[in-house]
Amino acid sequence: MRALMLAMALATLAVSGTTAAERPRARDLGIAPGVLATGPHNAITDVSGVLVGHVTRIEGEDVRTGVTAILPHGGNVFQDKVPAGLAIANGFGKLTGISQIVELGEIETPIVLTNTLSVWRAADALVTWTLAQPGNDKVRSVNAVVGETNDGYLNNIRKRVITEADVLTALREAKAGPVAEGAVGAGTGTMAFDLKGGIGTSSRVLPAKLGGYTVGVLVQSNYGGSLVIDGDPVGRRTGRFYLREYAPAAASSPSVADGSIMIVIATDAPLGDRALTRLARRSFAGLARTGSAFTNGSGDYAIAFSTSASVRRTPARRLGVAKVEEVANDDTSPLFVAVADATEEAIYNSLLKARTIESRDLDGRPVKGEALDPALLRKR
Amino acid sequence: MRALMLAMALATLAVSGTTAAERPRARDLGIAPGVLATGPHNAITDVSGVLVGHVTRIEGEDVRTGVTAILPHGGNVFQDKVPAGLAIANGFGKLTGISQIVELGEIETPIVLTNTLSVWRAADALVTWTLAQPGNDKVRSVNAVVGETNDGYLNNIRKRVITEADVLTALREAKAGPVAEGAVGAGTGTMAFDLKGGIGTSSRVLPAKLGGYTVGVLVQSNYGGSLVIDGDPVGRRTGRFYLREYAPAAASSPSVADGSIMIVIATDAPLGDRALTRLARRSFAGLARTGSAFTNGSGDYAIAFSTSASVRRTPARRLGVAKVEEVANDDTSPLFVAVADATEEAIYNSLLKARTIESRDLDGRPVKGEALDPALLRKR
Amino acid sequence: MRALMLAMALATLAVSGTTAAERPRARDLGIAPGVLATGPHNAITDVSGVLVGHVTRIEGEDVRTGVTAILPHGGNVFQDKVPAGLAIANGFGKLTGISQIVELGEIETPIVLTNTLSVWRAADALVTWTLAQPGNDKVRSVNAVVGETNDGYLNNIRKRVITEADVLTALREAKAGPVAEGAVGAGTGTMAFDLKGGIGTSSRVLPAKLGGYTVGVLVQSNYGGSLVIDGDPVGRRTGRFYLREYAPAAASSPSVADGSIMIVIATDAPLGDRALTRLARRSFAGLARTGSAFTNGSGDYAIAFSTSASVRRTPARRLGVAKVEEVANDDTSPLFVAVADATEEAIYNSLLKARTIESRDLDGRPVKGEALDPALLRKR
Amino acid sequence: MRALMLAMALATLAVSGTTAAERPRARDLGIAPGVLATGPHNAITDVSGVLVGHVTRIEGEDVRTGVTAILPHGGNVFQDKVPAGLAIANGFGKLTGISQIVELGEIETPIVLTNTLSVWRAADALVTWTLAQPGNDKVRSVNAVVGETNDGYLNNIRKRVITEADVLTALREAKAGPVAEGAVGAGTGTMAFDLKGGIGTSSRVLPAKLGGYTVGVLVQSNYGGSLVIDGDPVGRRTGRFYLREYAPAAASSPSVADGSIMIVIATDAPLGDRALTRLARRSFAGLARTGSAFTNGSGDYAIAFSTSASVRRTPARRLGVAKVEEVANDDTSPLFVAVADATEEAIYNSLLKARTIESRDLDGRPVKGEALDPALLRKR
Repeated sequence: MRALMLAMALATLAVSGTTAAERPRARDLGIAPGVLATGPHNAITDVSGVLVGHVTRIEGEDVRTGVTAILPHGGNVFQDKVPAGLAIANGFGKLTGISQIVELGEIETPIVLTNTLSVWRAADALVTWTLAQPGNDKVRSVNAVVGETNDGYLNNIRKRVITEADVLTALREAKAGPVAEGAVGAGTGTMAFDLKGGIGTSSRVLPAKLGGYTVGVLVQSNYGGSLVIDGDPVGRRTGRFYLREYAPAAASSPSVADGSIMIVIATDAPLGDRALTRLARRSFAGLARTGSAFTNGSGDYAIAFSTSASVRRTPARRLGVAKVEEVANDDTSPLFVAVADATEEAIYNSLLKARTIESRDLDGRPVKGEALDPALLRKR
Repeated sequence: MRALMLAMALATLAVSGTTAAERPRARDLGIAPGVLATGPHNAITDVSGVLVGHVTRIEGEDVRTGVTAILPHGGNVFQDKVPAGLAIANGFGKLTGISQIVELGEIETPIVLTNTLSVWRAADALVTWTLAQPGNDKVRSVNAVVGETNDGYLNNIRKRVITEADVLTALREAKAGPVAEGAVGAGTGTMAFDLKGGIGTSSRVLPAKLGGYTVGVLVQSNYGGSLVIDGDPVGRRTGRFYLREYAPAAASSPSVADGSIMIVIATDAPLGDRALTRLARRSFAGLARTGSAFTNGSGDYAIAFSTSASVRRTPARRLGVAKVEEVANDDTSPLFVAVADATEEAIYNSLLKARTIESRDLDGRPVKGEALDPALLRKR
Repeated sequence: MRALMLAMALATLAVSGTTAAERPRARDLGIAPGVLATGPHNAITDVSGVLVGHVTRIEGEDVRTGVTAILPHGGNVFQDKVPAGLAIANGFGKLTGISQIVELGEIETPIVLTNTLSVWRAADALVTWTLAQPGNDKVRSVNAVVGETNDGYLNNIRKRVITEADVLTALREAKAGPVAEGAVGAGTGTMAFDLKGGIGTSSRVLPAKLGGYTVGVLVQSNYGGSLVIDGDPVGRRTGRFYLREYAPAAASSPSVADGSIMIVIATDAPLGDRALTRLARRSFAGLARTGSAFTNGSGDYAIAFSTSASVRRTPARRLGVAKVEEVANDDTSPLFVAVADATEEAIYNSLLKARTIESRDLDGRPVKGEALDPALLRKR
Repeated sequence: MRALMLAMALATLAVSGTTAAERPRARDLGIAPGVLATGPHNAITDVSGVLVGHVTRIEGEDVRTGVTAILPHGGNVFQDKVPAGLAIANGFGKLTGISQIVELGEIETPIVLTNTLSVWRAADALVTWTLAQPGNDKVRSVNAVVGETNDGYLNNIRKRVITEADVLTALREAKAGPVAEGAVGAGTGTMAFDLKGGIGTSSRVLPAKLGGYTVGVLVQSNYGGSLVIDGDPVGRRTGRFYLREYAPAAASSPSVADGSIMIVIATDAPLGDRALTRLARRSFAGLARTGSAFTNGSGDYAIAFSTSASVRRTPARRLGVAKVEEVANDDTSPLFVAVADATEEAIYNSLLKARTIESRDLDGRPVKGEALDPALLRKR
């Protein structure tokens, strides 16, 4: 029913203006950070086993929000946990599950993204989902991992419209293959650099001699600063989307620098939690290159997990002595670079694929998240 | 209605066995850790302005749970934030709000305690409460702080019975003065050292020459190890409540060491977030002295906040340059000792005040959380 | 004597090739990250009170190293401590004093930079200096802060030539005003992006309406990745100084990505240690924009301190209750941006000002740290 | 020569008063924390491969200090690194090497302990030792791990008498088997609870069904609080060695609570760095049980490493994908308990084995570190 409603809502919206499908990804414009190759879909789902599901809620005049679920694998994640690491650039955010990820070095649920004020309902729904999975009937403790950014400019966030059903739908409909980007799922109402932000994804594949591993990144972009795209200072150059109010002669209309980003990183490299924590930290290098101002009010979080069977914490590996495989410290650097580059490109995709979204603010006045105009970008 | 039901439930239970009111506190037995004096109520509410509210849910055969709310002051906590610090001894837990507390050094909601699987509904309820407070009608981001321990032995935790109404009731009915302890509020169904645990509280007042400050602690005890009470190894001495299975000749019936504790620390000393983080860490010294095994599955968390007006982050202090007062590093040690001692005593109170609670496990078999028999303790 | 020898050594070297004085700074080439203005010297010394001293050791065929000292003020730093914060992007490094900076939120010595294997002798020398200062005759504990990067490519680092006298000289000769950059002091032998790295500095001044504060940064650059200068991918574009070995078709001669950077940040804004920690973290955004690969072997450290009299931890403020002033969380973002931009520019200055340095490796073979050719950069 | 001088010094001292050899260990008095068995020597050297060496410097009227070296194995530690974890209860200390231990999860040198102001010379000596080992002739980076406590009461610490030769001797003479305790090595001049502190050690062996692993702990005790020995509040009970100045009616002669402790933990259990970090944290539970006040001025550090061949980071395991073994999270709790209990007992041994040491303070006045009188302890 929900799925049907969503399909209808999307159908309605698709007729007005540019559709997401028509908008380019970064590579379509020749924007390709770094020197590593991408995977087949240039998406987090290039990491084998990873599934992504979206639920988009665009309703009435001011509901513009949603849910995005990232599953490390299609099995029972609570029983077959995956090692994970976490990094925080600025911690003004509500990500749940933090301390247990750090203590045990693992996640035992999918990662769900939504809006700031719906985090806890989404987490509760994720627990519902986990408790109901076959084999989990004795489970009495679940560390739900739900992140968020604040879509309160385009979305009436105080309504907290996200329901348990929304989360269950996103989890159930998660799939491999191409990932919808832009104003979709948890990115439906987000803003970045005074522009429409949203969901973006990208991947990198290491050369065989560097291990041949795949790294995939998915972002929910909702932050600000001075927009730079692959070295091109779009913001400063066009006199928009940058920190005008910081300049000696400030413009009358300041840009909005505050905001947040959630970054999810998957890899098939066999890595333990310390190495994954290091990968997570590298995503902020990609974020920095896009011109993020990393403001006081920003919640900049990255979670990285490994899908490798040789590190998965199956019931057999959770007792006694476990045999695991790990990429040695000395050979992790190419993975670090892959994370930074894929994060940077995922952010560009989130901006480029996001179409314009109109809404109403809390006082009923019209507001708009304008799509980034590719014509503003430097030709390559 | 809820309050009425609770009153009825409590009335029914009070008739059978020892009531909490009849059970002694630690000091009644001559147990008095440290050399500092206590405040008038020997409770966290000795810190001026702090309020505590409980909702107890004892229903049917297997619902034994509840909510405890600790308010740093009776005003609008979101507008008048208090500096806060956080410490984690073992992070197997679901405490929400962690990263923002660390990043900004403050809390903007009361602290709510409940059971493990109800954390997120309680957090959502805390957000409802915050959004509804006068003056918060434009608020679009709230960092809800909800902690938990797992009462899944005595309580059918999978039912997740805690409602928004429960949380709102605990917040509304929070008050100053004496604090109910034992099997009450979030301590209704918790276990410690194979005994009935629960809520406990204690306080310390520094001598005037050391600043004259008050420190109050409230705990939700639900952990294990080898019970020690003020130096008396009750567990080992009685052959119960200790780590029997670790001994060279193991007993057939092992004790249960796993579990968790939530520790909330209030002080009227003017302290910033770094100093409060240091205070929070000292609570684990008190915890250690009780024989905690700090096991893999334990979620041991402490949050400390200051109620001092000279550090409160009022709207006026949240812009430009704020003038604040802080106890200097060199003079913080007495506060550290106060925290450790009050935590230790709060734990003893949680055990001593908790009456026996009977319930059913997930398979319908009777289970019991037996009250600590004061007769087992060494005479003083 | 040492000073004389150094003067002679420098005089000798100045005759061959481009001198540092002739090489441009970034701004001379139109490279000016961000929109904030610089201070008068565009140097860390634009923060009033900050002093910088260098000792350069270029001797024989393979000694190419030195010491750089940064003093937060010209008084007795042990008695008049300054609040400080620390951030680590990748912790493969030997920075001393870490835990005490974090615990107490302050530094009590100047910050000294040198080469990796001389850290401890330099720290010991810094203690000698501190113990000998008037008023410190009863001091029995000193937390020396010494950072490093590894100049072992151009310098015979195993010789550990840095002496106590070198450190004392750098401290004694530290001064305000323009700061020598490039292959000087602790930057004498460092490499970055397969080019000669070294010491660089820059500053930013906030508009009056954002507080009017000054932020200054000094770096010791010795890292690698894919060189980007203000958005221009110099490395990829020229086919040099980038991660060739990561490309699908790898070049035969790989670049060297490993390495480190030490970043020192000063500000006159009244900030406590938590805020300074946040500032320190922002320097990595500037570092990321230059193309750092943040490799496994990198030691990327930032220390930030405040010189404001209203937060200085004088003897009077180290007992009882101290009155301090602090920029509120909500007003810190412009300082964050200043740190990122000044770090980025300080790095460019470190590369641009560094002249070519020739040496011998451990096996006696000639090695060279080539100066960045400004002609390779995109015209502006 | 140094060894000869030391032998002479020790010979001279042994004739006056109780010798360390005559003083009891805790178990000789029936003090035996916990229920786990000890290893054959009840020492850190019960962990196979671990070696301990001391150099004691007692010279003239006011030199009372030394060096203690703990080697994880007798091979080339730089080449065959061991995984390690670190925990800090209060960070007022100078331990070197912190960030690299955390980043890489390993140590590559032995651990050396000495006095506060000799840390850096000792670290430099440890680097000398490492660079000189066969196979290390190309090494250009060493992360020296040197901890300390402040023996400045009994020792003229400002003289910084510890030499490179002292450290090399401690390393060279390190051996397996029984470990000298008390006023020896780095414990020569330390004080704890206003009594003579020093070096102490203890071990635990898990029952076979819990893995059969050995855990060994060595401490350098130099802290304060209210002395408690296995639950007996010796300090409060005897009116000495406790926090008198915190009591409502303060004594005229306050105890000294400040100070520090270094704790080194070895195990043969196959553990990675995250698990070892968790072990390290548990040592503070043992420390807390002894009555530590964890004051502002305390430097309380613990380092844990694993000697298991299955986790050792040999050259072969430092490239590509390494196969390692690890005790699963769920089975780590007994190791945690072993660490806490062995730390507690090691501290008792450090106090009990330490004989009285007399010295002169900086002004030449006689000072004394009195040995704990076993007669003060409760009979068992």
